[in-house]
Amino acid sequence: MIITMYQASVPRMVNILHNLSRIIDKAQAHCDAQGIAIPVLMDARLFPDMYPFSKQVQIACDKSSSAVARLAGMEVPRYPDGETTFTELKQRISKTIAFLESVPPEKIDGTEDKDIVLPVTRQETRYKGLQLLLGHSLPNVYFHATTAYNILRHNGVAIGKRDFLGQP
Amino acid sequence: MIITMYQASVPRMVNILHNLSRIIDKAQAHCDAQGIAIPVLMDARLFPDMYPFSKQVQIACDKSSSAVARLAGMEVPRYPDGETTFTELKQRISKTIAFLESVPPEKIDGTEDKDIVLPVTRQETRYKGLQLLLGHSLPNVYFHATTAYNILRHNGVAIGKRDFLGQP
Repeated sequence: MIITMYQASVPRMVNILHNLSRIIDKAQAHCDAQGIAIPVLMDARLFPDMYPFSKQVQIACDKSSSAVARLAGMEVPRYPDGETTFTELKQRISKTIAFLESVPPEKIDGTEDKDIVLPVTRQETRYKGLQLLLGHSLPNVYFHATTAYNILRHNGVAIGKRDFLGQP
Repeated sequence: MIITMYQASVPRMVNILHNLSRIIDKAQAHCDAQGIAIPVLMDARLFPDMYPFSKQVQIACDKSSSAVARLAGMEVPRYPDGETTFTELKQRISKTIAFLESVPPEKIDGTEDKDIVLPVTRQETRYKGLQLLLGHSLPNVYFHATTAYNILRHNGVAIGKRDFLGQP
């Protein structure tokens, strides 16, 4: 047995995005129960120069789809960042999961050594496929998904680590 | 080419723990410059029933070493949670990294299908090696490392995502 690039990418990203979608359901229920306006949590942030909740979710989606698209040699899907409700944010997640699941495993497998160039902070960064996935993309997805979680937790939404991890 | 269990575990955990150690240096410098007592940040948390900064770092360490030890069939290292300073917390990280780097790759490789039983919240959970690593351990390490980062960021320490990602 070995690990394939597909096993280490699509199922992991789909799992964390599904969990994020269910966490958003809990945020919605929290707002409904407490009479909190949705934009209050959509725009919440942990520090003035950090991205708000909505942007954390958008980046978690985009880091997933862009990594998988680049590994597979497909066009990176682009979605406009206009979500203003939890429902729209869940649709963004659904679209991302649908794209991830549409990519055939054979397009991802064997890309460990593929050369990939990323435009990171105005400067091109070169990666091998394996390094992109394990050193850049997955840490980014987890980083932004956890920060989204932490913003809700900081605002009193009753979620726990099990909501974040889901069923591995 | 394939991904090995070793590539997907030890180097990733070592990278994130090194980054966390350098982030702690920035927290120390922040406290020194602003006249903030170290326990204020060590004990900081994002919500009353969340773990404080020090515990987030301890768990990021322990989830790394326990996963690698279990995959390798070695005894899980246990360190007491008594750290009260950033220096001690950095020592905890150093000990963890030294353990991770002491494990020979051949003890980790080929453990994808190994049966592993974890005592998770008073209830045994069974994993295959691959599922433990990609579905439980790495998400946990990133979750607690990101939460440690977010606690410092929320308290005004000047760190950015590049500090978290380091050199992949």
